[in-house]
Amino acid sequence: MDIIGAILIGAADRNDGATFDAINPATGVALAPAFAEAGADDVAAACALAADAFTVFSDLEPEKRARFLEAVAEQITALGDALIERAMAESGLPRARLEGERGRTIGQLKLFAAVVRQGDWIDATIDPAQPDRAPLPRPDLRRRNIAVGPVAVFGASNFPLAFSVAGGDTASAFAAGCPVVVKGHPAHPGTGELVARAIRAAVAAEGLPEGVFSYLPGTTNDLGGALVADPRIKAVGFTGSRGGGLALVRIAANRDEPIPVYAEMSSINPVILFPGAAAARGAALGTAFIGSLTMGAGQFCTNPGLVIALEGPELDAFIDAAKAALAVSPAQQMLTPGIHGSFKHGVGALAAHPSVELLARGLVGEGQSQAQGALFCTTVDKFLADPALGHEVFGSSSILVQARDMAEVATLLEGLEGQLTATILFDDSDEALVAPLIPILARKAGRILANGWPTGVEVSHAMVHGGPFPATSDSRTTSVGALAIDRFLRPVCYQGLPESLLPAAIQSGNPWQLARRVDGTIERG
Amino acid sequence: MDIIGAILIGAADRNDGATFDAINPATGVALAPAFAEAGADDVAAACALAADAFTVFSDLEPEKRARFLEAVAEQITALGDALIERAMAESGLPRARLEGERGRTIGQLKLFAAVVRQGDWIDATIDPAQPDRAPLPRPDLRRRNIAVGPVAVFGASNFPLAFSVAGGDTASAFAAGCPVVVKGHPAHPGTGELVARAIRAAVAAEGLPEGVFSYLPGTTNDLGGALVADPRIKAVGFTGSRGGGLALVRIAANRDEPIPVYAEMSSINPVILFPGAAAARGAALGTAFIGSLTMGAGQFCTNPGLVIALEGPELDAFIDAAKAALAVSPAQQMLTPGIHGSFKHGVGALAAHPSVELLARGLVGEGQSQAQGALFCTTVDKFLADPALGHEVFGSSSILVQARDMAEVATLLEGLEGQLTATILFDDSDEALVAPLIPILARKAGRILANGWPTGVEVSHAMVHGGPFPATSDSRTTSVGALAIDRFLRPVCYQGLPESLLPAAIQSGNPWQLARRVDGTIERG
Repeated sequence: MDIIGAILIGAADRNDGATFDAINPATGVALAPAFAEAGADDVAAACALAADAFTVFSDLEPEKRARFLEAVAEQITALGDALIERAMAESGLPRARLEGERGRTIGQLKLFAAVVRQGDWIDATIDPAQPDRAPLPRPDLRRRNIAVGPVAVFGASNFPLAFSVAGGDTASAFAAGCPVVVKGHPAHPGTGELVARAIRAAVAAEGLPEGVFSYLPGTTNDLGGALVADPRIKAVGFTGSRGGGLALVRIAANRDEPIPVYAEMSSINPVILFPGAAAARGAALGTAFIGSLTMGAGQFCTNPGLVIALEGPELDAFIDAAKAALAVSPAQQMLTPGIHGSFKHGVGALAAHPSVELLARGLVGEGQSQAQGALFCTTVDKFLADPALGHEVFGSSSILVQARDMAEVATLLEGLEGQLTATILFDDSDEALVAPLIPILARKAGRILANGWPTGVEVSHAMVHGGPFPATSDSRTTSVGALAIDRFLRPVCYQGLPESLLPAAIQSGNPWQLARRVDGTIERG
Repeated sequence: MDIIGAILIGAADRNDGATFDAINPATGVALAPAFAEAGADDVAAACALAADAFTVFSDLEPEKRARFLEAVAEQITALGDALIERAMAESGLPRARLEGERGRTIGQLKLFAAVVRQGDWIDATIDPAQPDRAPLPRPDLRRRNIAVGPVAVFGASNFPLAFSVAGGDTASAFAAGCPVVVKGHPAHPGTGELVARAIRAAVAAEGLPEGVFSYLPGTTNDLGGALVADPRIKAVGFTGSRGGGLALVRIAANRDEPIPVYAEMSSINPVILFPGAAAARGAALGTAFIGSLTMGAGQFCTNPGLVIALEGPELDAFIDAAKAALAVSPAQQMLTPGIHGSFKHGVGALAAHPSVELLARGLVGEGQSQAQGALFCTTVDKFLADPALGHEVFGSSSILVQARDMAEVATLLEGLEGQLTATILFDDSDEALVAPLIPILARKAGRILANGWPTGVEVSHAMVHGGPFPATSDSRTTSVGALAIDRFLRPVCYQGLPESLLPAAIQSGNPWQLARRVDGTIERG
């Protein structure tokens, strides 16, 4: 498929009007072609098509919607190496990383296909009538989940495939039965258009209404604002900055009909190093920490931006190894000049902060927009005295906070904002210190990891990529894994309807062979 | 237990300072004693205790939290007739209605006890490690739901037991493991205090931390605002007016950490009368409609405030019977002078509206604050031309909208805001007309009823008492029935933790014998 710089509104292309450029961050040079800037008219047209497509798409039997998700995966695969090469040019990410991300994107679509087929997401529930109950009979009550309506998706810059046009938000919204209108990220418009064309091809191949998917590339905040404000949009998925996410949350809350916004925003992902582990393997942990910190130029939502440890000589090996590893760590290409500028600004502010000491920097880069890693050090008192020290610096920057005792560790954790992850590094000898912190970590984070690193998010049933604000705008959910489908569903109860008017999922005959909850207990289909 | 007019902060009473009166709506006379007005200090004290109680209460094993819910039910039962008599005096509701409501309140607590014991709410999910997977091993991932944190509950005036201090919001929040701080409704402060003391007695009897429950009576908006703004509160349950609910939604959205508000607000509960049913049994339906409309002075969230039917002679029997039934329908005591004033104002505005015709009024009452039922009539064009006609008039007021054809019926339904319920009255001969409307109704309402009346909400597994805005502020949930527990839960993932540090719900040994999802499939406990 060719990249022509178009807006994709259902089955139609539009590419007249104002344009913007894709920039290769390694060179600063524009990549052809010019890309059309979507505007308010495009939003209205895409949302009208999405609303038209809703009833048919949301009422598809599971097998057909599962097939569509698989067809999207197949069409993305069929893009071949052109997709990888374009994504490399636009993002500065290396080939292996993008090939892995493509695998994850396809795997995610296939996971949701399996979830849709299996049908538990419908939560089919039947309370049979009790006509003889006293003092009042009970009517026949049946409940199922349905899709909330058309969904707006805002892709992230840092995963141009797995969190973008056909990423987790789109896959889970499709799985729920929601048409999707994607606001394309301007950092990778060519990659976005290729994937958008793959989705469109799948829509056509499966004979679905064209409004199931539209793609609106653009650079303006007005575009995103118009999309979230459109009355036909019923929910929003977003991955990006705290400022961007909160702006969408506010627009959504001020609509005549407020709608949910699932914004994954900001997290510094605390890592707690316990003394037994520090003493036993501090050097190895210090080296591994820098590996996680600098992976992908630190451009992961789960990048470890905070390490907490007890002060003392047993911490020396960890610190020495981390300093040594960072000092020889090559600079890495960042995603955009803007992201690199923000990183430099954030690291500069920490370097100039009177309460913070610089421990080490990585190697200086030679190309454009290259991240030079940074590791700082402070104390609990100083860290808590300035909330700015707890804000995310997107990129490979981290702060080591040394506590005098475990009470100070607990105080620090209580003082943190919500997080995507919290990591505990410990040995058996530490367990008595670890146990009382687990409930605090559960209140603060969506995922607690033992003796691993937070970078790397499995796409599976048990995953939670979420957490209390500001990690996300809605801690009841996840944006990665099977549970993400729940974000785009709402329950509807049917009381006393005859079999002929009931949806298939809750007909007495159980034509979809679902597991269903009957009088409170799950029965196999 | 005695009513002393106190604020209940954990185990302590406070009743100095400013006071307000309970008013008997039938007489306008104050009922002793004077009630202390809770203020910002009380909010802070109650929320601090709630936060202190959180870890212990949320980590209780299911059996113990189920026992606590049952103990609350027992303590309310033990209040005996004093509770009913006080509620009658404060609400103007008749004895039989309040005894029924007490039964529902107790049944609701017992349902949630059963839900907690059964354990499916935990959604325990395990993705076992795959150490040999290529290219990367999969870590051990386990997920469970935990309580979101302390919850603020705002009771409704119209159900002084079932939607108030120990109503569905409190019961479901307790079930999830959330300490609760209730803002007591000033229309029934004595009833509220009795129930609050019953809950406190259950907290003490079960040996739970005092902060599990506090009760803050008061009349000011500032009190409710301070409660929702308190950083220790993590979710809000509310039943009441659209204005009140939206005010809380805005306060919650503007916190440093935004939190969810589950506000059940406004619904006119459309009833669609199909021509076959109108022809076959129009008179009986007309009489039954007035029965539902005037039940409890029309003070139900699900009161049928809108009837939609095809114009023509087959509608005459329905209209004639409804007019006749309403004309002899006695006036009924309303809950408060303020609610009665709003009802009179709303009915007066409809009576004066140039697009609306008066069909019938009920009998004029003799006492204070008595509702005189009202039935109006208009056309689809006129109804859609003024959005004010679609706003709820709380009380026994309804509008019959006559459509020229089914296309007009669909247009009207599309033009409606979100609803708690939508009712279809039809015969077999109507099914071809009914079927295409079902998807529209599912988009608009939380519950679709066939050949019944929306008043009367079963407390069960399949119930949805919710719906799109403005029926509620969050269409993904219900405030009645077992599913209401989900509002107060969030998922947490545990990656690679040893058995000794895992919560019981997701330990390999499965000590709680839960049904758990393993690699995507539910396995029995």
